[in-house]
Amino acid sequence: MALPNKRRPIGVFDSGLGGLTVVREIAKLLPTEDIVYLGDLAHLPYGNKSQRQITRYSQAALKFLKKFQIKLGVFACNSASATSYRKLASTFSIPMVSVIEPAVGEAVSRSSSGRIGVIGTEATIRSRAYERYIKREDPKARVTSQACPLFVSLVEEGWVNGAITTSIAHHYLAPLKKARVDSVILGCTHYPVLTKTLQKVMGPNVHLVHSGLSTARSVKRLLGKKYLPRGARQNRRTGRIRCFVTDSPNRFQVLGQKFLGRSIGQKVASVQEVRLDV
Amino acid sequence: MALPNKRRPIGVFDSGLGGLTVVREIAKLLPTEDIVYLGDLAHLPYGNKSQRQITRYSQAALKFLKKFQIKLGVFACNSASATSYRKLASTFSIPMVSVIEPAVGEAVSRSSSGRIGVIGTEATIRSRAYERYIKREDPKARVTSQACPLFVSLVEEGWVNGAITTSIAHHYLAPLKKARVDSVILGCTHYPVLTKTLQKVMGPNVHLVHSGLSTARSVKRLLGKKYLPRGARQNRRTGRIRCFVTDSPNRFQVLGQKFLGRSIGQKVASVQEVRLDV
Repeated sequence: MALPNKRRPIGVFDSGLGGLTVVREIAKLLPTEDIVYLGDLAHLPYGNKSQRQITRYSQAALKFLKKFQIKLGVFACNSASATSYRKLASTFSIPMVSVIEPAVGEAVSRSSSGRIGVIGTEATIRSRAYERYIKREDPKARVTSQACPLFVSLVEEGWVNGAITTSIAHHYLAPLKKARVDSVILGCTHYPVLTKTLQKVMGPNVHLVHSGLSTARSVKRLLGKKYLPRGARQNRRTGRIRCFVTDSPNRFQVLGQKFLGRSIGQKVASVQEVRLDV
Repeated sequence: MALPNKRRPIGVFDSGLGGLTVVREIAKLLPTEDIVYLGDLAHLPYGNKSQRQITRYSQAALKFLKKFQIKLGVFACNSASATSYRKLASTFSIPMVSVIEPAVGEAVSRSSSGRIGVIGTEATIRSRAYERYIKREDPKARVTSQACPLFVSLVEEGWVNGAITTSIAHHYLAPLKKARVDSVILGCTHYPVLTKTLQKVMGPNVHLVHSGLSTARSVKRLLGKKYLPRGARQNRRTGRIRCFVTDSPNRFQVLGQKFLGRSIGQKVASVQEVRLDV
């Protein structure tokens, strides 16, 4: 059954749970919207796969979300945004938002020196997508990028503070400190969990850009531009969040709330396991 | 074309590159045998997936290897061995070897106190497969198990020594030291790379069991039992190693030799990308 355009859900996908930090910000900013989330846990992490493989997985994820008649698609995974967004966004007839452009916009506007740091997975850094977008916004910017493969494991282990995590952060962030960057894009949805440690290592004057919030703002802006937000009459309803995973629904139930936070009005209506047509 | 039984290759699979450490030991012990290796890089790591998902991937891997008329199949991945070997070994009409039973045999025979430690991925430890096999061999054994999810990332980062890796090893191995184990099974094909650090942390009197060598011995024994080793007339030939990966063949080329070592006579004849029927 076809839904009226404005009442269609927003579709969000990520390789795992990290994308829920993006869902959280969208839900806070647009509490009446319905959201369908796909966590591709059967293939996680994307960050150590090839560009071609990530594109294949992202395409399957978008095809799945399309079945829910989504009015807008969000690449909540940095690795997918960096490697596959440009290619896929144009092949689906739905407005799309990646986590990269919004974060770049914030970093460029907040940086006074033009020295910007980017941290992310191997795939994200290798793609140089952040550098490309930053240079487009500010051709004079100087970008220092660093892959931090251990950060995802640290977050999943729950080691977000402590001596070991601080040592690892010092190691990875050394080139950014040396380059005296004044803003750092957290180019992976897992990294905001490490904010305290990262801020301590970088110092209080460096601005850390979480892509979740800036992405949610882009979603709001784009819905407005396309005349797609839910109407005023529906403003009192609370949106519904439906979650689908390609593996480990129980793990998702346990860890999901940690990423989603408790500060949003929406409840997760359901978590269901599905298979993608890769 | 059907090959005579003895001249068929040995099939080996793993989620990634780690299984090459098992291939290395087989190649050293049985230098005339041909080996077909499948690295399922599109789905790695297996260690953070559900049992059902790992079984699905392992089944697809074995089906792929079966096309090469293999005379014996090796589960070179601990997570697959721990979660799927029992179920799948009986459904394929080929002799199979996992990395678990050989390592358990060695650990039990080398332990004088009966206090044995096991380290591995989340999936391996959660499955309790090692404990089950150890108790079967020695009902009085006391087993201390510890998942070490960061070790794989450390190896892939190349951080095999140094202060950070030593700190992390101290953290993970603390329960094993407290239990005063006298042998430790390295229940993940990545871990042998960390041997120096692990031995330093555990002390010189603790025996570390690498499953590669004991698995190769099991392969040799089982081939003999089934009258399947290559005949004496072929003893002068050097076996051929063919490698297939489901993603990132270039990465495999670069890192593969590190795991395979240079001490074997066989050469990797080819690395080819393939898709599995999952």
